[in-house]
Amino acid sequence: MKIGFVQNEPRFGEVEHNLDRLSTLLANHSADLIVLPELFNTGYQFTTREEALKLAEPLSGGRTVEWLMEASRRTQAALVAGLAESSGGRVYNSAVLVRPEGVIGHYRKAHLFDTEKRVFDPGDLPLGVFDIGPARVGIMICFDWRFPETARTLALKGADIIAHPSNLVLKHCPDAMITRCLENRVFAITADRVGTEERVAGQPLRFIGQSQVVDPDGNVLHRASADQEEVKILSVDIRQAREKRINPNNDLFDDRREDLYIAR
Amino acid sequence: MKIGFVQNEPRFGEVEHNLDRLSTLLANHSADLIVLPELFNTGYQFTTREEALKLAEPLSGGRTVEWLMEASRRTQAALVAGLAESSGGRVYNSAVLVRPEGVIGHYRKAHLFDTEKRVFDPGDLPLGVFDIGPARVGIMICFDWRFPETARTLALKGADIIAHPSNLVLKHCPDAMITRCLENRVFAITADRVGTEERVAGQPLRFIGQSQVVDPDGNVLHRASADQEEVKILSVDIRQAREKRINPNNDLFDDRREDLYIAR
Repeated sequence: MKIGFVQNEPRFGEVEHNLDRLSTLLANHSADLIVLPELFNTGYQFTTREEALKLAEPLSGGRTVEWLMEASRRTQAALVAGLAESSGGRVYNSAVLVRPEGVIGHYRKAHLFDTEKRVFDPGDLPLGVFDIGPARVGIMICFDWRFPETARTLALKGADIIAHPSNLVLKHCPDAMITRCLENRVFAITADRVGTEERVAGQPLRFIGQSQVVDPDGNVLHRASADQEEVKILSVDIRQAREKRINPNNDLFDDRREDLYIAR
Repeated sequence: MKIGFVQNEPRFGEVEHNLDRLSTLLANHSADLIVLPELFNTGYQFTTREEALKLAEPLSGGRTVEWLMEASRRTQAALVAGLAESSGGRVYNSAVLVRPEGVIGHYRKAHLFDTEKRVFDPGDLPLGVFDIGPARVGIMICFDWRFPETARTLALKGADIIAHPSNLVLKHCPDAMITRCLENRVFAITADRVGTEERVAGQPLRFIGQSQVVDPDGNVLHRASADQEEVKILSVDIRQAREKRINPNNDLFDDRREDLYIAR
């Protein structure tokens, strides 16, 4: 099975430019699953809720979903991508799983980071796992990494691969995703962006790139640079993620001691 | 507050020798909390349950607990240490928290690693957090690291510091403990051992050392070598662990979305 990511550098608010650039980056690539960054089409730093609502799109008939359907057709891949979603006056930091026929998976970011709380409504959908044939794909977005229950829930729901659109500004996530893969024996594809935004004067945000694919043994199969756009596709054996035993005596799911764990 | 660890190299089965060596290592050190490795007094690789029962000790009146009480008196520190515990015909891979007056905390390893399952009974005590005055100390042992619910449960129960006696043979734990600290905003002290055991011919076990102290921001304050004995004590500000906010808008505990998490 071929999986991978796009690491891009969107221009804030320039959706057509950003989609065109993605088309160029994806030209001549094909795969089974490709993950794009969080808010890949608009850029990240909305300063107000009104600004987000203006750039947000409905999933049904929206420009970006239409583009994703076409890009899925061209790449033959299921695409996971982050975008600002408008729905009934609300606006979500969402991710969609798209095939040529349309949206087959949908998630709204549950753990909003910092000032995102002033812009987006909190996610109100279950953590979802979606079957694309060769693999079951769980979706989480960026800061969700910090909460171990997110990846754990996706893995317990059957995810083989965690698709993880991101716009990372803190340094720890790439290494922490190794832990997420080790503890759940899943693959993880973190698709991050590069570049800087300074939409509030004097408060530049620098995105750290380092998009990566990690396997269930915690091996970083590929990690992108901190500052360059890149498309990376590689082959994996998804059966690795369906074997939760790490030796003849330990199965990471069967060994869980739910009798001792507390939620609060 | 002063916290630290001992990284030792026990000889299998030679309890008196190992305790003497620890006395030498600890001479002239003092602290508030010092963590010793898993099975620090006996060595690790019991080949049968009978062998473990022979070297195991009761907590009350046992030689090793008596030694720990005396070592606590000399170092002025609360000591967390791993030992094989015998109790009513059972044998546990346990850890105790000891002060001069006796055992004030007790834990039995919940997630047994590999062939430990043939030797030890699984832990049957709750994950415990114990107040030593300047800090609340949660205890977990070695392979417990692989299950994010272990550290999470300790943190939610109020642990400021996770004391983590270990005998590590896999490479990933030291880095994964950084994730445990980041996701829970706790300190973690992993006390590992060094050296090799070959109690089954042709199957040597090499322990990776690299004992460490990590802070709630994921900084490795000190990491020991892979092959030398060492005592390390350092000063920390425990208030760091009591602040679960990472910015004005995110509190790692308040932001948890229990409505979306599943245990299974």
